[in-house]
Amino acid sequence: VQVRPLHRIGIVGLGLIGGSLARRLAPTADVVGYARDPSIRAAAAAAGIQTTDSLQDATAGRDTVVLATPLPALDDILPTVASTVDAAVLTDVTSVKLPVLQAVRRLPSSVRYVGGHPMAGTEHSGFAAGSADLFDGAVWVLCLEPDTDLSAWLQLAALYTSIGCRVVPCPADEHDAALARVSALPHVLACALAAAGDGGGSLALRLAAGSFRDGTRVAATRPELIAALCDGNRWALAEVLDETVDRLRAAAAALRSGGTVAELVAEGHDGRAHWQAMVDASAAVSTRSTVDRPAAALRAMLLALGAAGGYVEQVGADGQLHMRTPGH
Amino acid sequence: VQVRPLHRIGIVGLGLIGGSLARRLAPTADVVGYARDPSIRAAAAAAGIQTTDSLQDATAGRDTVVLATPLPALDDILPTVASTVDAAVLTDVTSVKLPVLQAVRRLPSSVRYVGGHPMAGTEHSGFAAGSADLFDGAVWVLCLEPDTDLSAWLQLAALYTSIGCRVVPCPADEHDAALARVSALPHVLACALAAAGDGGGSLALRLAAGSFRDGTRVAATRPELIAALCDGNRWALAEVLDETVDRLRAAAAALRSGGTVAELVAEGHDGRAHWQAMVDASAAVSTRSTVDRPAAALRAMLLALGAAGGYVEQVGADGQLHMRTPGH
Repeated sequence: VQVRPLHRIGIVGLGLIGGSLARRLAPTADVVGYARDPSIRAAAAAAGIQTTDSLQDATAGRDTVVLATPLPALDDILPTVASTVDAAVLTDVTSVKLPVLQAVRRLPSSVRYVGGHPMAGTEHSGFAAGSADLFDGAVWVLCLEPDTDLSAWLQLAALYTSIGCRVVPCPADEHDAALARVSALPHVLACALAAAGDGGGSLALRLAAGSFRDGTRVAATRPELIAALCDGNRWALAEVLDETVDRLRAAAAALRSGGTVAELVAEGHDGRAHWQAMVDASAAVSTRSTVDRPAAALRAMLLALGAAGGYVEQVGADGQLHMRTPGH
Repeated sequence: VQVRPLHRIGIVGLGLIGGSLARRLAPTADVVGYARDPSIRAAAAAAGIQTTDSLQDATAGRDTVVLATPLPALDDILPTVASTVDAAVLTDVTSVKLPVLQAVRRLPSSVRYVGGHPMAGTEHSGFAAGSADLFDGAVWVLCLEPDTDLSAWLQLAALYTSIGCRVVPCPADEHDAALARVSALPHVLACALAAAGDGGGSLALRLAAGSFRDGTRVAATRPELIAALCDGNRWALAEVLDETVDRLRAAAAALRSGGTVAELVAEGHDGRAHWQAMVDASAAVSTRSTVDRPAAALRAMLLALGAAGGYVEQVGADGQLHMRTPGH
C-alpha cells in the first residue's frame, strides 16, 4: 500500500462545501474549481481560486476530483465525470452515501470512488457563506466498502487530515443509519416541536424560552434542505422515527397511568453524557499503525476504528497512521 | 381598583429563583428571606439579604409573600403560610400552576393568592447560581382566574415590571397547556433524541454535530428536575405527546411510501418563524389603558392581552398600564 500525495485537485461545485475546500487547498495545491454560474466563478476567482466553465477541465488530468454538488445534480454529471476522470481519485461530499455508491456502481468499474461526507455546515449556503477554516477540527467521513481501493482511501485521508480534519472510516450503509439518528432525526424533531409550540398559539410562543429556542433552531434551516436530508435517507430515518414514536408513546402512557417519564429521562441523560464524553477530546487515546500491512487487516482495523468512535488524525509521510479512539 | 406599591416582602425559599429575587429586591425594599438550610441563610446574609430561620417571620406582617420552594415542599408549608399571611398578597414561582391553584383553593378563602411563574432559569440551581439580573427582560406569568383579586394581581404586576419583567396574564390551565408545549415537550424530545443517538453507538455519536448538540442540550439537565417538570404537568403533556406521535408517524409513513417530510418541515419552519417574530421586540406595538375601569372589562382586556402574546411592561403610578402586543 502506497500513499502518494494528491496535488492536482478538481472541485465540481463551489457552494459552501466546495467553495470552502477550494479556498483551503488553493494556497498549497493546484486547484481548479468548476461552477456553472458565472457570478460564483467570479466570486471564487476574486478569492484567488482558479476556475473553469468547463466540467471537463475540472476533471480531466486531475489526480483528485471532488464532487461538491447537491445529490440531484450528481446523477446528471456522474456519467460525464466518469468518462473523463482517468486514474483520478473520485470523491463527493453529499450527506447520504448509499444512493451515491449505488449510482457509482453503475459506472465503469475502473473509477476509483471513495464516498465522503464532511460534518461541517452552517444554516447558510453558497460560496459567500464559506471560509478556509470551515473544516478545522471537523469530522470527515470516508466510506470504506469491501471493494474500496485502499490506496485511494488513504490518499484522501492524507489530504483531509492535512487540512485539520478527523477522518472517520465506515461503510456507506452505517453512515446513513448513523446520520438518520444524529442529523435527520434532530431536524424532524425540531420541526415537530416548532409545530407543537405554534399549535399553542401566541401565548405558548410568548412563554417559550431556552429549551424551545434551542430545540427548534434547525427548523429555521431552508425547508428544501431539510426535506432533501430526510427524504434522501428515507429508510433509515423511518426506522428511527418508529423507535422514537415508541419512546414517546411509552412516556405518554406512563403519564396517563399516574407514572413518570423518569425512564426516558434517564436514557436521554445518559445518551447526552455519552456524546459529551465523545467530544471531550482530552479523554481520547492515541494509537498508531503502519499502512504497510495486509490490505484485509488494514481494512478491518480502520472499520473497527470508526465503529468505536475513533478517527484518523494524520497520515504520516513515513506510512504511519495516527489515530484517536474515545477513552471512556 | 387601586395599585398600592408592595414594600414588605417575604421570600420563602432562597434557591435560584427565590435567591435571585431577594438579591434584586433587597436594595430597594424590606425583604426577609427564609431558608431551612443554615448554609443557604449564611450565603444570603453575605449577599446583603436579611434572613430568618422562622417560616412565620417571613410571612407574618409582610404585604407580599413569595413562595419560592419546589412544588412538593409547597404542599407542606401552605397551611402554615395561609394561617400567618394576614392580608398579604400570596404568590409562588412554580412551573405548573393548576396543582398550586387547587391546593390554594382548599385554604381559607381570605387568602389573596396570585399564581406566578418567571420564565427564567438556567440548567443550574441553588442560591449560588442566582443573580440580581436573572429576571432582566424575562417573562413572568401572573395567573388570572375569574376569582383572582384584581388589586393583588396589579400590585404584583407593578412589583415585577419594576424589576424589568414582562408580565403575562393568563389562566392557570392555559399556562400549563402552553408550558407542556414549549417547556415539557422540548425536554422530552431532547431525551428521546439523545437516546436515539446513543442507540446508534459510538459511530453515531462521533458523527453528531450541531443539530444533535442543540437538540439534546436540555437532556443534560438534572433528571429529577426534568421528571418533575413533566410529571407535574402530566395531562397536558400526554396530550401534546399524542399530537407529536401523530406528526412523526405521518412523516414515517410518507417516507416509506416514497413521499416526503416536506409537509411537517413546512409546518415546523412556519412555527419557528412565528416564534422568531414574537421575540423580535422591534415589531411590538405599544398600547395603554387605565386601571380605573370596571373590573370585568379590565380582566377581559388582560386575558385578551396574554392570549395575543402580549404583556404588561409597566404599571404607572398614575394608574396607567403600559402594554405591548406582537406586531405581526
